[in-house]
Amino acid sequence: MKKKFLFKKNWFFEDFIPEGPTFSTWGVIIEKEIYSGKSKFQKIDIFDTKEFGRILTLDGMIQLSTKDEFVYHEMLTHPALFYHPRPEKILIIGGGDGGVLREVLKHPVKKVFLVDIDEKVIEVSKKYLPSVSRGAFRDKRTEIVIEDGLKFIKKYKNYFDIIIVDSTDYFGPAKKLGEVRFYKDVSRALKADGVFTAQTAYFQEKFAKNVRKNIKKVFPLFKIHRAFVGCFPFDEHTFSIGSKKINFDKVSFEKITKRFKKLNLKTKYYSPKIHFSSAVLPKYLEEKLK
Amino acid sequence: MKKKFLFKKNWFFEDFIPEGPTFSTWGVIIEKEIYSGKSKFQKIDIFDTKEFGRILTLDGMIQLSTKDEFVYHEMLTHPALFYHPRPEKILIIGGGDGGVLREVLKHPVKKVFLVDIDEKVIEVSKKYLPSVSRGAFRDKRTEIVIEDGLKFIKKYKNYFDIIIVDSTDYFGPAKKLGEVRFYKDVSRALKADGVFTAQTAYFQEKFAKNVRKNIKKVFPLFKIHRAFVGCFPFDEHTFSIGSKKINFDKVSFEKITKRFKKLNLKTKYYSPKIHFSSAVLPKYLEEKLK
Repeated sequence: MKKKFLFKKNWFFEDFIPEGPTFSTWGVIIEKEIYSGKSKFQKIDIFDTKEFGRILTLDGMIQLSTKDEFVYHEMLTHPALFYHPRPEKILIIGGGDGGVLREVLKHPVKKVFLVDIDEKVIEVSKKYLPSVSRGAFRDKRTEIVIEDGLKFIKKYKNYFDIIIVDSTDYFGPAKKLGEVRFYKDVSRALKADGVFTAQTAYFQEKFAKNVRKNIKKVFPLFKIHRAFVGCFPFDEHTFSIGSKKINFDKVSFEKITKRFKKLNLKTKYYSPKIHFSSAVLPKYLEEKLK
Repeated sequence: MKKKFLFKKNWFFEDFIPEGPTFSTWGVIIEKEIYSGKSKFQKIDIFDTKEFGRILTLDGMIQLSTKDEFVYHEMLTHPALFYHPRPEKILIIGGGDGGVLREVLKHPVKKVFLVDIDEKVIEVSKKYLPSVSRGAFRDKRTEIVIEDGLKFIKKYKNYFDIIIVDSTDYFGPAKKLGEVRFYKDVSRALKADGVFTAQTAYFQEKFAKNVRKNIKKVFPLFKIHRAFVGCFPFDEHTFSIGSKKINFDKVSFEKITKRFKKLNLKTKYYSPKIHFSSAVLPKYLEEKLK
């Protein structure tokens, strides 16, 4: 058995803990520590690697790498915005790194609220991850609100076209962002034809199953998209989308292609073809979704 | 920085070495060693894990896990067989574990040659991985040949409908299976409307780029499919398909769906929808393929 094990002090490891103890692990060499600090809410670390570029972790869990953040941020943004006929008022809950904000602003939206509980994440992202937000925080359409998303959303009714949850996984601080109570508030804050989308981790994780179930309880129309994000290496990542009124299966390829071209949208991962192919599930997952 | 590093004697680690030194690694806990031996050609190890079931490695590199071999074997088999109008004579080079053979035999084929250089791989796979071949070695249509595929293929001309290469990656023993000289022999052994398919590792690996380039030199019509296979965690896996005559883009969804239903094909991953969605590349890869 070839057990190659390069132990070095400067490795970052993240374990895969599906429903109990660690079964497998993944590690990357830290070339340089860029930032390490603690906010009121979490531990924040930023470091450089050769393969993944710059990595951001919150409480030791990878949030993004500059190498593949485009996959994650494009897939959390564009499917939802293209399902909606004319998204103008957008709410992002979480997303303090500015990546989703950057993608949303590629559309002719009128107003984007970015509501993050942790000011420190925004501050260090601006400073150490400028390629992620690329000036999106300074856009005139952007309004940054430092507040708990759970509280913020209660103030709105029939207001947003799109609500995006870009949070850490649904345990600890983000647990309540996966509960029915919150999705009811989301539904109330959305217009009738509003679209909700959230990162929902790996398809087969126990908490992800729960979150999907909860979204479906509130949003009768539901769609899941998937994409492989290199710095989340244990499975494909899923993005769940819900609505009260828009039947996603009736939004045509032709319609999306026409709008994509008209907007001259600059993307690296998303395309109208990817929009549809990323919503096709392998047979065994399709059956699990039923 | 949370550097969780569970060192135990019973971990198996595989590094990701794209074009030089190790940048990242992936490891899984070995619950039980099942087999460890050496053939004339390579080191063979089989062990059990909690997350991935039973794993087969050759020279320390993972070939399959019983948890996700269905993804790999279905995607290496069915796209190619469904592109061909009526596949009857099939050649598998490598594939000693019997997984591709099992999938091929789900089609109404007449004759399947499985040519593996290493008898020992077949022997231990039959014994310790029976769920992979599931009796496929005993099928009347199967003929096992223990020979170097490079030599075997020279004996045939205008004979096969489908040739499948299910080898280890294209360095060391399998290097020549990625060269133009071999693909010319493959082309000669195929009928005019024959289809060639091979596992081509991760899209962005240097040797994979070379292999694709070489396939395209011999086969003017080319298609790439991709799927995420959990035990190859560093990227999506790619499957390349080439032909002299069949224009893959003209094989319709309706046609494949009709045949898929008629054959009543039992698959876990592949479906006619997956056939087409797996051939859609993200924008940045599409541009690299040009």
